[in-house]
Amino acid sequence: MSHYPSARFLKAVSRRHLLGWGASGLALAAAAVTASVAAGSKLLKAGIRVPPWPSDYQPPAQSPFDPMAVLRDFDYGQIKQENGQTIREFEVTANSTAFQLNSAIPFVGWMLNGQIPAPTLRAKAGDRVRVIFHNQDGHSHSLHFHGLHPAEMDGITPVRHDQTTVYEFIAEPYGVHPYHCHVAPVTRHVSKGLYGLFIVDPPQGRAPADEMVLVMGGYDINNDQQNELYAFNGIPNYYRDHPIAIYQHQRIRLYVLNMIEFDSAVTFHIHANMFEVYPTGRTLKSVGDTDVITMGPAERHILEFAYPYPGKYMFHPHQDAIAERGCMGLFEVLPT
Amino acid sequence: MSHYPSARFLKAVSRRHLLGWGASGLALAAAAVTASVAAGSKLLKAGIRVPPWPSDYQPPAQSPFDPMAVLRDFDYGQIKQENGQTIREFEVTANSTAFQLNSAIPFVGWMLNGQIPAPTLRAKAGDRVRVIFHNQDGHSHSLHFHGLHPAEMDGITPVRHDQTTVYEFIAEPYGVHPYHCHVAPVTRHVSKGLYGLFIVDPPQGRAPADEMVLVMGGYDINNDQQNELYAFNGIPNYYRDHPIAIYQHQRIRLYVLNMIEFDSAVTFHIHANMFEVYPTGRTLKSVGDTDVITMGPAERHILEFAYPYPGKYMFHPHQDAIAERGCMGLFEVLPT
Amino acid sequence: MSHYPSARFLKAVSRRHLLGWGASGLALAAAAVTASVAAGSKLLKAGIRVPPWPSDYQPPAQSPFDPMAVLRDFDYGQIKQENGQTIREFEVTANSTAFQLNSAIPFVGWMLNGQIPAPTLRAKAGDRVRVIFHNQDGHSHSLHFHGLHPAEMDGITPVRHDQTTVYEFIAEPYGVHPYHCHVAPVTRHVSKGLYGLFIVDPPQGRAPADEMVLVMGGYDINNDQQNELYAFNGIPNYYRDHPIAIYQHQRIRLYVLNMIEFDSAVTFHIHANMFEVYPTGRTLKSVGDTDVITMGPAERHILEFAYPYPGKYMFHPHQDAIAERGCMGLFEVLPT
Repeated sequence: MSHYPSARFLKAVSRRHLLGWGASGLALAAAAVTASVAAGSKLLKAGIRVPPWPSDYQPPAQSPFDPMAVLRDFDYGQIKQENGQTIREFEVTANSTAFQLNSAIPFVGWMLNGQIPAPTLRAKAGDRVRVIFHNQDGHSHSLHFHGLHPAEMDGITPVRHDQTTVYEFIAEPYGVHPYHCHVAPVTRHVSKGLYGLFIVDPPQGRAPADEMVLVMGGYDINNDQQNELYAFNGIPNYYRDHPIAIYQHQRIRLYVLNMIEFDSAVTFHIHANMFEVYPTGRTLKSVGDTDVITMGPAERHILEFAYPYPGKYMFHPHQDAIAERGCMGLFEVLPT
Repeated sequence: MSHYPSARFLKAVSRRHLLGWGASGLALAAAAVTASVAAGSKLLKAGIRVPPWPSDYQPPAQSPFDPMAVLRDFDYGQIKQENGQTIREFEVTANSTAFQLNSAIPFVGWMLNGQIPAPTLRAKAGDRVRVIFHNQDGHSHSLHFHGLHPAEMDGITPVRHDQTTVYEFIAEPYGVHPYHCHVAPVTRHVSKGLYGLFIVDPPQGRAPADEMVLVMGGYDINNDQQNELYAFNGIPNYYRDHPIAIYQHQRIRLYVLNMIEFDSAVTFHIHANMFEVYPTGRTLKSVGDTDVITMGPAERHILEFAYPYPGKYMFHPHQDAIAERGCMGLFEVLPT
Repeated sequence: MSHYPSARFLKAVSRRHLLGWGASGLALAAAAVTASVAAGSKLLKAGIRVPPWPSDYQPPAQSPFDPMAVLRDFDYGQIKQENGQTIREFEVTANSTAFQLNSAIPFVGWMLNGQIPAPTLRAKAGDRVRVIFHNQDGHSHSLHFHGLHPAEMDGITPVRHDQTTVYEFIAEPYGVHPYHCHVAPVTRHVSKGLYGLFIVDPPQGRAPADEMVLVMGGYDINNDQQNELYAFNGIPNYYRDHPIAIYQHQRIRLYVLNMIEFDSAVTFHIHANMFEVYPTGRTLKSVGDTDVITMGPAERHILEFAYPYPGKYMFHPHQDAIAERGCMGLFEVLPT
């Protein structure tokens, strides 16, 4: 029986992780098996320990995607050789899909690869990246990446139904970048779900950690230019009802992105702990720690921490009105 | 004739300050008496000079608390020895009390120890802290502390009417942390007044300064999930109508906390000066200076400055709509 | 045929720039003529290259000011000698003027020197600055400067119709400071247009760059305490419809100020690039780079970047609702 909930995720892991960073990725996975609490330090020193998932876990019945799978799923693309050049190639398809925000409220999401947020694309700084974008949706869409690239690759030109466009550029600079549809009205295209993370790893990598993405989004259900519900990774209150299991003393690395439209800013807060901040993922050293950080739309950071005590801990924006409308989660810290 | 306005404050000072940092606290007070402008420097170098209060000062008639007393009141708790262990013990009681936001508008505040904000609890990093929480209010409440602690001490479990709960943990890390009720709806429990500051001093302390707390809160008078009035330390426009006297060239240390619900963020601004920023109080050195800083809910900083010229100077959020609804104060800088 | 669009701007440049930093300013201008891409570096190393303006450019017909002229216009004042003291003297006049926010919507702006934002005043740290303020408007107004100054120069006292007031103080500290009317209701006086930048240059100056100001403002057209339109430098969508030409590899230095009332915060974002951040202009070295930065009202920063590729690139707040209501511009990067 697999640790992981969904066949989709398992498949993703086996294909992407192994094709991704290759041999070193395998080594990392092997090291994780023998991880232990290092003597004289509270932080787990070697490898990465990720708790097995409950064997009775059921992915959400009325959603095409599983926030638990989205959480730790990194799409490293496929490596291709063309004319002596190495290219990291991704495929992203836009479509509309109805799903349940909760048992009472259905919503037609505009999704990339059938999920909100979009797949987390991941490359190394300096990689030549190719994103093949298929628009299977009835509306025109585009993929606009943050980070450096030429104007022609900026993704502000609408791609019509049934059309395919290729975005190709060098992944730079290292850091955490959003990508999202940039077709007007952007407020609508984004709040319907067309956004995700593009992680560019620094050449030297970062310290081993249990890595996950948390993307904050809002849902304007009645088209009043305000959000009635909010979510981490697509489904309101999902991680409140299904806490994220992590290990005590394990370094956790969050890639946090705010893609909430209509609200001026949100904060991100974890309970009973402080996190180290790597603004925009653009530093290799933390610039300091806190437990509440303000993020305007499209702001994103790497936040790192380890829980010294086991138990359940909330995380949420400290705009409590937003937390109480679905942007609420729990870490369940398992003893080591 | 006492320098200080209220019997309550005087009592607090004599009991808490002397029991607080003990001998070194006394030494500090003594040094303040001989403070003078150091030659070659504009900043008062030795001790702390706090202006005497006008002898005709009257605390607010229709409020159980006096914002002027709250301003410089630090509760150091009581030191107890138990089984060879030193414990810093605080007592906090929740209750409801009607008071006047201004001459026209009454409000039933949910208060801790009869004040908004709650008493400023203060400890040294590494102290074992015990907070005995009595809920005398008709509603369930809790005390949730920011900072490090085990899950059982996280204060998210409601404490019912007439019940007492004890929170006990090691004060860490040093810095400025909010504490507040975490019973749902948190928006309501916080905006009714259940919030305050928990200051954890670094082991080596900080430079002598005239220290004060400024906690920004909002009042949703008509329950429309928006604030109609705002205040520093509980009563709208109090420090506008009763300027805070400080001395020219005296280092001022503000512990500023934003606990305004329903607004995405506020700024804090002082007139005619810049302040040094110690984010979340987590640094011993300033990270830079400015005169406007954005703070999401539950964000807090140490801000330090000295006024080079005497006179009256406003401080307020630069969201002017918030300033004009009660979050407005004045420093009156007295010449030295 | 002049490079520049308006006679007003040309006059401003010839008078102000030459009177401004004097000989060194002239040297800088001369160096710019011979600027070239330095070998081994992508950044233009010497001087400053500013693209000539299209010969067919027409300033807006229904506005007393031209956002394109405002963009790179710095008022260095006039140098006077009085009693052996050097004084940098500015004159600012308030008045009301109707103009078109777009082809359909007229607005009566409250303007300083006939423009929104007000003229960008510029001095060197330590200069004695005198601002002669004439209020020709029907309402009382004032000029409140951020930065250090005595209480009497704080500009919170209303200056009545037909009155003149003189503000005089030492320009300190170096950095980027707003100035604005501080007559109540400030929300109204600011949102009608009475705000601008006061740049205080560090003694050693900064690296040569194509410098420009971008001031974000909001317009509450129907007096509902919300903004219906937004703009960079006064006219909604002006730089979207008239892209700002800059040169590839040329260091661009933006002085960005948020003076939007009624919104808690905005962000500033540029496409396809990252910018170096100098918070409040209070540092000589960047504190890091990103491409989205959150700014509360009256927050301002220096942001620097160079575009590596030619083409058109958007800049806008990432609160897309604000961008879509007029706070949208384009850089047109010309190849070098």
